[in-house]
Amino acid sequence: RTNKQRLWDSLMEMGEIGGTEKGGCCRLALTDLDKQGRDLFVRWCEAAGCTISVDKMGNIFARRAGQDDSLPPVVMGSHLDTQPTGGKFDGVYGVLAGLEVIRTLNDNGIETRAPIEASVWTNEEGSRFPPAMVSSGVFAGAFDLEYGLSRADLDGKTMGEELARIGYAGSAEVGGRPFKAFFEAHIEQGPILEAEDKRIGVVTDAQGQRWYEVTLTGQESHAGPTPMPTRRDALVGAARIVDMVNRIGMEHQPNACATVGLMQVFPNSRNVIPGQVFFTVDFRHPDAEVLARMDQALREGARRIVEDLRLEMDFEQIWHSPPVPFDRDCVASVRKATEALGLSHREMVSGAGHDACYISRVAPTSMIFVPCEDGISHNELERADADDLAAGCDVLLKAVLERAND
Amino acid sequence: RTNKQRLWDSLMEMGEIGGTEKGGCCRLALTDLDKQGRDLFVRWCEAAGCTISVDKMGNIFARRAGQDDSLPPVVMGSHLDTQPTGGKFDGVYGVLAGLEVIRTLNDNGIETRAPIEASVWTNEEGSRFPPAMVSSGVFAGAFDLEYGLSRADLDGKTMGEELARIGYAGSAEVGGRPFKAFFEAHIEQGPILEAEDKRIGVVTDAQGQRWYEVTLTGQESHAGPTPMPTRRDALVGAARIVDMVNRIGMEHQPNACATVGLMQVFPNSRNVIPGQVFFTVDFRHPDAEVLARMDQALREGARRIVEDLRLEMDFEQIWHSPPVPFDRDCVASVRKATEALGLSHREMVSGAGHDACYISRVAPTSMIFVPCEDGISHNELERADADDLAAGCDVLLKAVLERAND
Ligand SMILES: NC(=O)NCCC(=O)O
Ligand SMILES: NC(=O)NCCC(=O)O
Repeated sequence: RTNKQRLWDSLMEMGEIGGTEKGGCCRLALTDLDKQGRDLFVRWCEAAGCTISVDKMGNIFARRAGQDDSLPPVVMGSHLDTQPTGGKFDGVYGVLAGLEVIRTLNDNGIETRAPIEASVWTNEEGSRFPPAMVSSGVFAGAFDLEYGLSRADLDGKTMGEELARIGYAGSAEVGGRPFKAFFEAHIEQGPILEAEDKRIGVVTDAQGQRWYEVTLTGQESHAGPTPMPTRRDALVGAARIVDMVNRIGMEHQPNACATVGLMQVFPNSRNVIPGQVFFTVDFRHPDAEVLARMDQALREGARRIVEDLRLEMDFEQIWHSPPVPFDRDCVASVRKATEALGLSHREMVSGAGHDACYISRVAPTSMIFVPCEDGISHNELERADADDLAAGCDVLLKAVLERAND
Repeated sequence: RTNKQRLWDSLMEMGEIGGTEKGGCCRLALTDLDKQGRDLFVRWCEAAGCTISVDKMGNIFARRAGQDDSLPPVVMGSHLDTQPTGGKFDGVYGVLAGLEVIRTLNDNGIETRAPIEASVWTNEEGSRFPPAMVSSGVFAGAFDLEYGLSRADLDGKTMGEELARIGYAGSAEVGGRPFKAFFEAHIEQGPILEAEDKRIGVVTDAQGQRWYEVTLTGQESHAGPTPMPTRRDALVGAARIVDMVNRIGMEHQPNACATVGLMQVFPNSRNVIPGQVFFTVDFRHPDAEVLARMDQALREGARRIVEDLRLEMDFEQIWHSPPVPFDRDCVASVRKATEALGLSHREMVSGAGHDACYISRVAPTSMIFVPCEDGISHNELERADADDLAAGCDVLLKAVLERAND
């Protein structure tokens, strides 16, 4: 069994870095705060006897040697970056659960046949640098290194520049080495486990996602003397598309999600008709075909709206992450561990993307979910229960041991 | 006759302060650039023999003495601040036309019975510090001084602080002194004069305006695992209200204008359901009753929309500027001057608010419009013709002379 209190204390200590008044955490990827969080993780891992390596995307691997160190490692992990209104658990839990597994093995003097690694993946959230899961994506060959390092925030700063600035542009090649298995523990970020009073989600799949960037261009002009019929108001166009995105999501229930999360209005002055609006669209569905129909509806609907309003549109799908089926054996290891521990559980599909989604392309992978309060995350009020977190960590320990010793 | 070339050169020189690549001007109220523009105006006026005074709202008055200096002055003027995507003419023209009138009187050694003043009104645009026409409003008693100085930008900086910072917190009391008359020359900012090939707009009225600030609050949450039916997406609410604002404008044609110009989304991250959106609404109509009906439609419609989406709403009308009828005698002076100069003209209602709207509460007031290309302003492409600008300035000169000598 892992140490519930130690896991909790580590989560709380990490959560202070970027901690917010409302009890959440704002530690955007590759900021000074992200550096502080990484430094703390590295210190803890070194104290636990691990060897650290950092790759060119800033992914961190803390390795606990195995009896046969030539075997591929069993890897655990997730991410330390958060949303602007993030919580203390999303990502961080999967990282520190990995560390807790290593600490528990140390406490009990347990050796494993294969080495074990706890990992941190850079910029999973995709909030500062879109898209999400960039660095596990590079690791898995979904993106090339060039693409990863050139992702830029809204101020034009690139991941490459910011990695160098905070001292986490490592020298290891990104990917190209085998994992025996990869396990990611995470809060569910949805309401299902809590509603059904289950402790553990045995994650079998992750839904597909498509992300878009849209720029509408009309003509800025005076809000007073410019007659309505002659206007080309980019915000009216954006508003109609936001509403349509929402309807597309509702029309593809159950399971579809459709969100406009980011919008920038130009020139953003009260008495100026907006001349340009930039916004993003996030579509999700577990079924690739439904996701394709949603894509179709968006493209056709947006075209009609901008034609009506005589706007110009720049429309780009910037990311497509197809639905992911996790490895049957890894899923079975998680289920077995859960049952052996006598924990209530159910199978589930992940609504969020996770580093595990990309890693599953290059290694047998699965995930372990624990409940979070009201299913809320990407919110400062995100909360999880210490017992649930410890239970998920115990499942992780058991699944890892099985894989590392088989 | 005024000096066309000198007027144009002065406009171009002033337009360099904050000049943009696209040929426009970005000189927001009380920025360093606004200070530079004010300094240039003051230098020019002193060179033309004027005495400068600055009041506590930073309004500048450049006075050319009259034969009887105890008479109330005839005042000309407008504003030097611009929109973020402003042009070189909106406001600036009315200020420099006033200066050009004074320079022309000097050139010709003409004395007037009453003194003449060219004025600059602080923060007319209301873009940085809402509402619009704040300082002419304080001058006219529509707002008290406290209210004026405490207007704040989106960063929380107040007009009082910024006036002190740029050295334009003057010592003169704001208002409380009579004007014999007030004339404001301005580009039309609409398409009518150009469409009808008229040189001069004799402005009889200005339409009414209502400005609103709306904050919608829902709950930020993850765009992936949060089911559509349980969401409280503040941006979906804002989008529906933007669309409704546009429809209210269309339903009250002709003459109604309805605009959402500014919107801020929180936390503004691609994969987070927006938890809060702040936006503004700008309604205009020449008829106070129609404007009241638009207000009613907005309040009722917005309430329905937020109820549907289970959002909270903070809704405030932050400004109401009722329709303004200008002074019949001042309008007649403008018409007479126009006819005497043989210029084509028509009567018109101003679509924009102007400092003249407030000054008309405390002094006989009217306005002179000249055409602008495609009716476009609050846009870097705003353009006006040197001959039209000079024609408007000639009308101003004639109207001012009539009033100053009667
Ligand atoms: N787990 C998580 O919040 N990932 C961010 C990527 C996504 O939006 O799904
Ligand atoms: N003239 C002008 O652009 N005034 C700004 C105030 C308004 O929005 O009407």
